[in-house]
Amino acid sequence: MSNQATIGKDELAKQLRAIVGVANLVVDEETQKPYECDGLSVYCEMPLLVVLPETKEQVASVMRLCHEHRIPVVARGAGTGLCAGAMPNREGVLLSLAKLSRILDIDPVARIARVQPGVRNLAISEAAAGFGLYYAPDPSSQIACTIGGNVAENSGGVHCLKYGLTVHNILGFEMVTVEGEVLQVGGDGLDSAGYDLNALLIGSEGMLGVVTEISVKLLPKPQLAQALMVAFDDIEKAGNAVAAVIANGIIPAGLEMMDGHAIVAAEDFAKAGYPTEAKALLLCEVDGTVEEVEEHAERLEKIFLDQGAFLVRKSANEEERLLLWKGRKSAFPAVGRISPDYYCMDGTIPRSQLAHVLLEIERMSAEYGLRVANVFHAGDGNLHPLILFDANIPGELEKTEEFGGKILELSVDVGGSITGEHGVGKEKLRQMYKQFNDDELALFLAVKAAFDPQGLLNPGKGIPELRRCQEYRSIDLN
Amino acid sequence: MSNQATIGKDELAKQLRAIVGVANLVVDEETQKPYECDGLSVYCEMPLLVVLPETKEQVASVMRLCHEHRIPVVARGAGTGLCAGAMPNREGVLLSLAKLSRILDIDPVARIARVQPGVRNLAISEAAAGFGLYYAPDPSSQIACTIGGNVAENSGGVHCLKYGLTVHNILGFEMVTVEGEVLQVGGDGLDSAGYDLNALLIGSEGMLGVVTEISVKLLPKPQLAQALMVAFDDIEKAGNAVAAVIANGIIPAGLEMMDGHAIVAAEDFAKAGYPTEAKALLLCEVDGTVEEVEEHAERLEKIFLDQGAFLVRKSANEEERLLLWKGRKSAFPAVGRISPDYYCMDGTIPRSQLAHVLLEIERMSAEYGLRVANVFHAGDGNLHPLILFDANIPGELEKTEEFGGKILELSVDVGGSITGEHGVGKEKLRQMYKQFNDDELALFLAVKAAFDPQGLLNPGKGIPELRRCQEYRSIDLN
Repeated sequence: MSNQATIGKDELAKQLRAIVGVANLVVDEETQKPYECDGLSVYCEMPLLVVLPETKEQVASVMRLCHEHRIPVVARGAGTGLCAGAMPNREGVLLSLAKLSRILDIDPVARIARVQPGVRNLAISEAAAGFGLYYAPDPSSQIACTIGGNVAENSGGVHCLKYGLTVHNILGFEMVTVEGEVLQVGGDGLDSAGYDLNALLIGSEGMLGVVTEISVKLLPKPQLAQALMVAFDDIEKAGNAVAAVIANGIIPAGLEMMDGHAIVAAEDFAKAGYPTEAKALLLCEVDGTVEEVEEHAERLEKIFLDQGAFLVRKSANEEERLLLWKGRKSAFPAVGRISPDYYCMDGTIPRSQLAHVLLEIERMSAEYGLRVANVFHAGDGNLHPLILFDANIPGELEKTEEFGGKILELSVDVGGSITGEHGVGKEKLRQMYKQFNDDELALFLAVKAAFDPQGLLNPGKGIPELRRCQEYRSIDLN
Repeated sequence: MSNQATIGKDELAKQLRAIVGVANLVVDEETQKPYECDGLSVYCEMPLLVVLPETKEQVASVMRLCHEHRIPVVARGAGTGLCAGAMPNREGVLLSLAKLSRILDIDPVARIARVQPGVRNLAISEAAAGFGLYYAPDPSSQIACTIGGNVAENSGGVHCLKYGLTVHNILGFEMVTVEGEVLQVGGDGLDSAGYDLNALLIGSEGMLGVVTEISVKLLPKPQLAQALMVAFDDIEKAGNAVAAVIANGIIPAGLEMMDGHAIVAAEDFAKAGYPTEAKALLLCEVDGTVEEVEEHAERLEKIFLDQGAFLVRKSANEEERLLLWKGRKSAFPAVGRISPDYYCMDGTIPRSQLAHVLLEIERMSAEYGLRVANVFHAGDGNLHPLILFDANIPGELEKTEEFGGKILELSVDVGGSITGEHGVGKEKLRQMYKQFNDDELALFLAVKAAFDPQGLLNPGKGIPELRRCQEYRSIDLN
């Protein structure tokens, strides 16, 4: 137990049981095991206790109890995150929100759904489909990941170029503070009075409060969507084509890019019809009315050919469109087949730097002797380089982590960010020193202290401590 | 001077002069007079000193000096705000950013402009026009208001239904903290690591920091825009028509509404061809490619006729479109001609409550014996009821303020907000108690303290103090 805790594990378990019932408290190691890490399994830790409240009142009671006795709390959705943001704290309670999984209300006229945090991302769109509506942000894990987790990490997805990140699609929510108070944040209107806590909380990785109810925007399903598959013999041309599309003023619903390694792996796995001789492939989706789609697809085809594409193929029907996307969506597991292990990075760069950064990654790949497959949201400048390695070779994991860190630092150097949609979590604490100066970090910490003065919420994640700062700066970055 | 100040006025003036030069410090009352209030001239106060720095380094030095000596600082753009957010503090420095008025850079490929806070809103679009680009948020005051002021109040405008508020169009900025440190907030990418201070700062009314440089998103100018003028003999039908448009999935570039009083006043003033017998008028703009505009305008016409409009007129050319808007844009001065004084309110409500709220305002209008002209951003549910009164009649201003307060409280009761785009400032402090409970206000104050522990930045605005809370709650709201 933590130095600061004022209650023993057994007594804590007893009191938690009184709140959530016997069935909703996990004390034995075997049943706790699945909670040991999130999608980034490099970082694991067993929690003290796992609690699964069924109502928001129970969440508030759990928070009050933990606050009173200074017990750390780590909130968790489906655990699909990729930055160890939901990694448990060994001295704290792992608060699973999986059982708060009800869709409370869908208002098709206002186009708003009110949902609990444990609702799966895709389940919202499924429930709204009857009204011709859907929820736009679509992380790759959307079958499994929860909307509460999306809020915590400000998740993106293939379509966020046009439809925005989670923060652009959430109207407001109800949250429980570290002290167990229930607050309303944001609202159904376009703006609200007071500071914009809505945006502040979204993406705050469980460090400021626990969300117990969420109002999400629903959008009308587009009449039609069409995908263009565009192949280049040179990755620089593809990067320039992305810049040309955006400069032209068309905002595609999705604009994804894969490099040679990724194309071969994906084609081998999904048989999507990708040209395996290509050095770069763009998947570009347009949606809207029939007229819009037709007009945009034509203009895009012209831009791509002008930029030197050797092949542009438009999906002729829905089946073809889905097949083209199947390749992209299975790129991660496909890469998993060509390498024992891979490490997925997540940096964002200005679109104008795409070609430069890809060439630099290629150079570093040779330097480290580690292959890289690049799969990413090109339209947003959100890179997902997959570093291929073999954890069984001594030292290769460490080399991979170092290489990954260099890619993130490169992102910062060209004016980008160390995260696009995966968050900082435990994984990127060190790169935060690269991204922000001490004054900026001090401000983050002051905001944290405003919500959670004792540092009980998801400790050791997201924002690094200042006292470790000098040390890191001198050792790693100079 | 404030109890806490550790420097006299003369010594402060001397040190400020050393930073900004003699010409940029205003000490005499006559020259200070124009800074006495912002657009809401009900609230006036003379500042201690007015300072007009010319560089961000000077801003930082001014902040350091004031912080050292505990002098309050109120930042100001063009002073067009409508909530007394820029009203000076008698014991503090009024920090005008008018001289930081340079457009630093326009990147037409990345579609980003980097500007200083004193640049006028419209000047950005004018400078970007050569590249076929523009800055979308367009407050009515856009000829005069500055982008720094827009950031402080999270300004909206006629087109924010489709293109969003200021917060949706700012990528990042540079700010000076109360201590005089210079920080970077946000960035050119879609997301960034750490807490979303970008959104937190935007709309924080000068209470958290002073913005010295801003990166704004530029958008490609639409090929075509067309306006539809739609007349109803009943305000409820118009409210329902707005809901029907949104439910149908079309997002017009603008969707504005005027009631009978406003129609008559605007037509008399602008000769826009509005049917003065109408009880409600909608102006609906669609933009995009020629095909999109044509298709959307047709679908909208059908919806409006289905909802009982007795007249739908589409602008045949750009001249007609501008004439239709001229009426709407001159509605405020037009109303000024039919009444000695008017008070412009700013509440946001769920769109589904439009008809209900308008009928309630009509009822209260009779109760108070004060006429109301309604002009508003119907698509966003952002109301601007103009209460017509005569300040020369004793007690009428007080009655007007009470009536205005009731309208804001009604907005909260139906699930809306006490502000849409004008901010809280000094004007709506009291209604903050209606909108938020003590726990929520305490959180706002904790955030404030994280940035400005001594409360030097724009004191007495935006967030009310808790100690006054009980008092107000018991007197006014129960």
